[in-house]
Amino acid sequence: MKSKIYLLFLFVLMGLYSCNNQLEVDEDIITGRPEWAIVIHGGAGNITHESITPEREQEYRDKLKEAIEAGARVLENGGSSLDAVEITIKILEDCPLFNAGKGAVFSADGVNELDASIMDGTTLNAGAVAGVTNIKHPISAARQVMENSKHVMLVKEGAEKFAEEQGLEIVDPSYFYTEKRWHSLQKAKEREAGRKEDKTKKSGTVGCVALDKNGNLAAGTSTGGMTNKKYGRVGDSPVIGAGTYANNNSCGVSATGHGEYFIRNVVAYDISARMLYLGESLEEASNIVINKVLKEQKGSGGVVAIDKNGNISMPFNTTGMFRALMKPGGKAEVYVFKEE
Amino acid sequence: MKSKIYLLFLFVLMGLYSCNNQLEVDEDIITGRPEWAIVIHGGAGNITHESITPEREQEYRDKLKEAIEAGARVLENGGSSLDAVEITIKILEDCPLFNAGKGAVFSADGVNELDASIMDGTTLNAGAVAGVTNIKHPISAARQVMENSKHVMLVKEGAEKFAEEQGLEIVDPSYFYTEKRWHSLQKAKEREAGRKEDKTKKSGTVGCVALDKNGNLAAGTSTGGMTNKKYGRVGDSPVIGAGTYANNNSCGVSATGHGEYFIRNVVAYDISARMLYLGESLEEASNIVINKVLKEQKGSGGVVAIDKNGNISMPFNTTGMFRALMKPGGKAEVYVFKEE
Repeated sequence: MKSKIYLLFLFVLMGLYSCNNQLEVDEDIITGRPEWAIVIHGGAGNITHESITPEREQEYRDKLKEAIEAGARVLENGGSSLDAVEITIKILEDCPLFNAGKGAVFSADGVNELDASIMDGTTLNAGAVAGVTNIKHPISAARQVMENSKHVMLVKEGAEKFAEEQGLEIVDPSYFYTEKRWHSLQKAKEREAGRKEDKTKKSGTVGCVALDKNGNLAAGTSTGGMTNKKYGRVGDSPVIGAGTYANNNSCGVSATGHGEYFIRNVVAYDISARMLYLGESLEEASNIVINKVLKEQKGSGGVVAIDKNGNISMPFNTTGMFRALMKPGGKAEVYVFKEE
Repeated sequence: MKSKIYLLFLFVLMGLYSCNNQLEVDEDIITGRPEWAIVIHGGAGNITHESITPEREQEYRDKLKEAIEAGARVLENGGSSLDAVEITIKILEDCPLFNAGKGAVFSADGVNELDASIMDGTTLNAGAVAGVTNIKHPISAARQVMENSKHVMLVKEGAEKFAEEQGLEIVDPSYFYTEKRWHSLQKAKEREAGRKEDKTKKSGTVGCVALDKNGNLAAGTSTGGMTNKKYGRVGDSPVIGAGTYANNNSCGVSATGHGEYFIRNVVAYDISARMLYLGESLEEASNIVINKVLKEQKGSGGVVAIDKNGNISMPFNTTGMFRALMKPGGKAEVYVFKEE
């Protein structure tokens, strides 16, 4: 009986301690909230000092810096997180280094099929396009779907027709030809014929999450999918809840990696759900999903995310992820490898 | 000080009571688990005694009974929940009453674009097709994607090519012509021209969730989408996490309703997440999502769901939902309206 009473008091003390602790943490977060925050990725994968030359690495770093600084200017000037996300991703879509827009990889049929999505954490409205071949900026098409249609997801020719009617820039599909990506397709086909595994594969999906001065979160993702993809395959990037999610009550998330695993595990939404339902921090939730749930399934990739208090998290379970973050008064922090 | 000690003891007592209660509930659930369970829907919407004739109502009831009994036979004979889901949905796809397969509605372009998805709660593997026009049984195509490709989601011609290569039955797109649906399209276009709201709209998406004797959950959904849909619109039915989700640790869910709301709210996965993270029962979780979260956003529709212990839930926030459930030793219970 005596030991039971001791146990009861122990529980009570533990309860009081954890309540107290919680209060302190919350206060720190609230008082430490930055005016705005932005984070981007340019894909996660087998990125090591051996797999990339210093010159090429510098090109990536310069472009990530340019893109995030453009988004940061929008936020610093009081612009919306949606504008920041769209402008930042458009810069990455214009750059052939990344597997999105101009630099999109080729499908098995030798065409570039692009996917993108965007979500507004204030309204939970969202837009996505999949399998489009002639829209210069798929992220802008996704935003038009969100703002000027009743729908969330439009695919293929229908999405292209809609984008054209909305006045977006339409290009000849040959615009997306780059010698590097064509070469990658040929290599992939050779490996496929020889049944060799692709050990050098890199995902160059791009994404951005932003928190603006009004406390509104937005997230967006854009990709060319997988090299040598077949049968109209669509990955997680245009799937709301998988590749992209934003909710002012929790966080904004953009994912990159082996898309099928991100769809099955509803990755972007799961991070938000863990925060809202389990009370986990953004850092905890995103790390568990990427470095435990996905890793155990051998689902490679990562996310960039910002919570409603401006905390930033960028976990990945590959050797590298092109990524950058920026907050008021600070410079763009650009990272490529795991350890740096 | 004295009152604080009383408060502490009150908390302790409340804690002990709730722990004790929890144990009792869990035991009840475990001992009461049926050998198998199956639930189906044929769409939710404005379904009232005024909007449907007794003869037509009987046709729906008969077909729902036929479909669920076919699935139940599979389960009773020790078959897998995946087989039960596929066989049941194929029967509904073959019936012109429902907006799936044969009875699919027409898009604005006068074609039938079909979407379907399926998920295996044991492996978390999943498959989906979207925007296909010539696959007789889209649910079977979704299953082939899950089992015989590395992908989760295939769209349009690519998905059709894959289905054909897998030996699925391909039909001329005219197979999906029904006078009733063609008439609905013309009416929708008239209303659109006159900017009148469609007050009679019914969703006839079909879905099935099953729990087999091995404790494996599976869920599937199939649809023709929205009448007069434009621009390659894809709803929630082929989106894993939104229209379909299954996980042996929590539940299986198939949704029907205004798809855009189901995507934005990641409905099917959210029900599972609320169970796993908040400890809610299936009944609580599905009711909160349908009758609170969605209702507040004016997102109309419903779900059918089974948890790992064989409990069945069928909430909807419309006036009716075609639905049926069945358990060992019982007859098919078929329902149409809210109150019955």
